[in-house]
Amino acid sequence: MVKYLSQSEAIELDLDLFEMFHVGQLMELAGLSCADAVAECFPAQTHPRVLVVCGPGNNGGDGLVCARHLSLMGYQPTVYYPKPTLMSLYENLTNQCHHMEIPSVKKCPSVSDAEEDYDLILDALFGFGFKPPVREDFVPLVKMMQETKVPIASVDIPSGWDVEKGKQSECDFEPKLLISLTAPKLCAEHFKGEHHYLGGRFVPPALQRKYQLNLPDYGSKLVVRL
Amino acid sequence: MVKYLSQSEAIELDLDLFEMFHVGQLMELAGLSCADAVAECFPAQTHPRVLVVCGPGNNGGDGLVCARHLSLMGYQPTVYYPKPTLMSLYENLTNQCHHMEIPSVKKCPSVSDAEEDYDLILDALFGFGFKPPVREDFVPLVKMMQETKVPIASVDIPSGWDVEKGKQSECDFEPKLLISLTAPKLCAEHFKGEHHYLGGRFVPPALQRKYQLNLPDYGSKLVVRL
Repeated sequence: MVKYLSQSEAIELDLDLFEMFHVGQLMELAGLSCADAVAECFPAQTHPRVLVVCGPGNNGGDGLVCARHLSLMGYQPTVYYPKPTLMSLYENLTNQCHHMEIPSVKKCPSVSDAEEDYDLILDALFGFGFKPPVREDFVPLVKMMQETKVPIASVDIPSGWDVEKGKQSECDFEPKLLISLTAPKLCAEHFKGEHHYLGGRFVPPALQRKYQLNLPDYGSKLVVRL
Repeated sequence: MVKYLSQSEAIELDLDLFEMFHVGQLMELAGLSCADAVAECFPAQTHPRVLVVCGPGNNGGDGLVCARHLSLMGYQPTVYYPKPTLMSLYENLTNQCHHMEIPSVKKCPSVSDAEEDYDLILDALFGFGFKPPVREDFVPLVKMMQETKVPIASVDIPSGWDVEKGKQSECDFEPKLLISLTAPKLCAEHFKGEHHYLGGRFVPPALQRKYQLNLPDYGSKLVVRL
């Protein structure tokens, strides 16, 4: 069975990958994987309007890439990126969303607005570096995702969950789709949603051996259902 | 119908794309598209051993990316990269192939060795910037591809062809698969092989309009059969 990583293993593996790849390369493949998994579970025909919620770190970068690919796949994504990171990597990804003519919103939608305006929320808020509690700035957004009936697809970690232990309280939301990247983190053992995918098909054999990842066969695809 | 680009249009469109994207991003998506098209036409089960022939420019970079993804898809690629470009972009892509444990050859295989050792040749030698004649260094390689019976998949331009007029002589080879990137070039109108794919699903709407590309619908895939 595929290995589930602790938080410290995930951080260490990521550093190893950054020695071999440009962060933009990994982000491109990770974000594209997320779009592929979304397309398999929530086709553009039935779930065209996607709110892509981007956090300030790499998880948010994956979200920006995913929004671009969703747009190219025929979805109508909208980006909500409340705390943009002032680094050229993130600025370029944001500009690329503008070039794709992807609209953005400046305010966190209310629960009722989200239900009216979107068919899916892509949660690219917090990644495997997350340590509770949720920063005050992001509390309304996490609360909206906890209360909405719009299905949620989470990138790597359902935002608010403990990276190893899973839900921290009854309030924490359960995404319908979880896209684990590189390898699932321990919290994914507690995932009870419908669709669990693995993406991030880029780990060289030596790193697969070092961390005993025991990755499944992707065939010729970028994502695989776990 | 999709627009077929002249050489100067292709060069101008590429410069426009480089204003919006990092070259490594475009190369990642282009090379991955090529691997996807190969996987559709020549599955790893029947054509596992792929000789990836990389030229000194961007076409060769696409080939290095493609080799990495083919390896992750279960193929056994071998890279032949006779004139490596001394730029970090290409050095990184080459190192990534090493991390994937992809072997390379230092000498151009003979016609008979190629037929014994490979099930497919990925021709990533010359791209849309090519102007005849073939540089002396590459003549033996082009000749091998002209004489071999191993099926050839060409990235963007069949190497040796005039970018607009197609074959320059009866000797020029006809690839079994042509993967046009961004938009087909005029030479592709003369392509008579079995499989013509379009990859490079990354053109923003404003550029699609500017060049009146009239791109086909990719659906949720990175490549589409033309």
